[in-house]
Amino acid sequence: MTTLETVREFLATTFPQAKGIVEQVGPLSATVRHPVGFDELRPGGTVSGPVLMATADFALYVAILGTIGIVPLTVTTSLNVNFLRKPAADRDIIAVCTILKLGKTLAVGEVSLFSEGSSAPVAHAVGTYSIPKTVTRPEDGNPAARK
Amino acid sequence: MTTLETVREFLATTFPQAKGIVEQVGPLSATVRHPVGFDELRPGGTVSGPVLMATADFALYVAILGTIGIVPLTVTTSLNVNFLRKPAADRDIIAVCTILKLGKTLAVGEVSLFSEGSSAPVAHAVGTYSIPKTVTRPEDGNPAARK
Amino acid sequence: MTTLETVREFLATTFPQAKGIVEQVGPLSATVRHPVGFDELRPGGTVSGPVLMATADFALYVAILGTIGIVPLTVTTSLNVNFLRKPAADRDIIAVCTILKLGKTLAVGEVSLFSEGSSAPVAHAVGTYSIPKTVTRPEDGNPAARK
Amino acid sequence: MTTLETVREFLATTFPQAKGIVEQVGPLSATVRHPVGFDELRPGGTVSGPVLMATADFALYVAILGTIGIVPLTVTTSLNVNFLRKPAADRDIIAVCTILKLGKTLAVGEVSLFSEGSSAPVAHAVGTYSIPKTVTRPEDGNPAARK
Repeated sequence: MTTLETVREFLATTFPQAKGIVEQVGPLSATVRHPVGFDELRPGGTVSGPVLMATADFALYVAILGTIGIVPLTVTTSLNVNFLRKPAADRDIIAVCTILKLGKTLAVGEVSLFSEGSSAPVAHAVGTYSIPKTVTRPEDGNPAARK
Repeated sequence: MTTLETVREFLATTFPQAKGIVEQVGPLSATVRHPVGFDELRPGGTVSGPVLMATADFALYVAILGTIGIVPLTVTTSLNVNFLRKPAADRDIIAVCTILKLGKTLAVGEVSLFSEGSSAPVAHAVGTYSIPKTVTRPEDGNPAARK
Repeated sequence: MTTLETVREFLATTFPQAKGIVEQVGPLSATVRHPVGFDELRPGGTVSGPVLMATADFALYVAILGTIGIVPLTVTTSLNVNFLRKPAADRDIIAVCTILKLGKTLAVGEVSLFSEGSSAPVAHAVGTYSIPKTVTRPEDGNPAARK
Repeated sequence: MTTLETVREFLATTFPQAKGIVEQVGPLSATVRHPVGFDELRPGGTVSGPVLMATADFALYVAILGTIGIVPLTVTTSLNVNFLRKPAADRDIIAVCTILKLGKTLAVGEVSLFSEGSSAPVAHAVGTYSIPKTVTRPEDGNPAARK
């Protein structure tokens, strides 16, 4: 497992464009926050769909890094998002991710997104990440034995 | 049908956060461009998934506005994206949207995304938008009644 | 809320083609079983993807009927399925559905599917149903007041 | 490339449960037909969603077999379907598949589904298949090495 500190450091160094803040990371899960300001809004005074999608994608990425270690080239292969309720324009977005399946080359996870302080999700996402083959996986035990 | 100029003016006034540039808009279709710079990249020197998703979503929005008129509160209800190839880090993203179905309350469209100058798509998306009920649709006859 | 008996009776009368068996139905949830025999298998000795999709769709339909009452013309507008693990060829499929959002015209729910007796999901689905406007919804209280 | 005859023979032998009829198969494409009878209908006198999903999935499977050869263990990893129009109860379903990306381990394709004789799609699907690693791909040179 990768610690919260390790993930944050990696992101700060390698991915400074990312606006999300990692709040929790554990094997097979993660919670991230996306601050909401003018750039995040769209007509109608609400958080734009792309911000929600980016936050869902980021939560998946963090949950996978938190499980298999720092593998920067792990990439999204698909993301499906359903928008459920209008997010508050003055609340951060909180995304909670659970990994449903961690295979050798693919990871699938789901993400529930909330306006901070509310328990009714504003969106729900399911995404798939491709994991490069060179990764040594934690459960493999003996890294020397890997092909 | 809404002209390219009308759509551009509306977006500049109401949605200045949007980075996409509308290149073509027609009934049931649209082409938009998303400039690619540092903010659009992710580890691995490629355009980030969220930029592709935002561009797909924007292309759908523009194609719908181009068909039913300026209806700002038309909102995304779902988006499914498949990432197909690594986008070039130094090319703009071009998204080409076709509306598959324009119903009374829902519109469904598909979007192919390309690195400019390449014909192999970097991503493909299918999205659904919800259309508010107060809209008078072009086929309803009286465009003057539309806001 | 609709009782298990009411839902079963409706399905037996109106939808005899359905092979799923309703095991539990509650407001905003449902559990259904799909018996697995020769017709459900595909090359590789496993339950075919379409059987899993049909079961996910059926679980969503039942959860919605269980919440808003018997509304036969409630129809699927989209379904997204991720296949996670190989189902056992000799176990029934159990699908557990939770409704994420019940709006006036759209319901969105998620479904986890299992080979009976296993706790690791074989598939996960998210679907959207369109609800006809003539429905009197439970939470509306006074049906006479509806438009 | 695999011929129409080879694909039909393989399916008849190995997958007799499949109700779809292969009408065309080419590298990166396929057209299949699903006969519509009582078993395919649902309340409302229309073809059920699961039949459309099964037909979409089958069209993808056939298009992939038609491109990489007979690889029975190629399996669906995800399918996203949008239902667009009510299919006719007395017309066969015709599904036309195009492969968007054929990678080493994943293939992604899209499928448009029609009631025979109509040009407005009743549904649209995008699916992903996982290709087992043992496959020798046509472009790899030696087709004789393929099982």
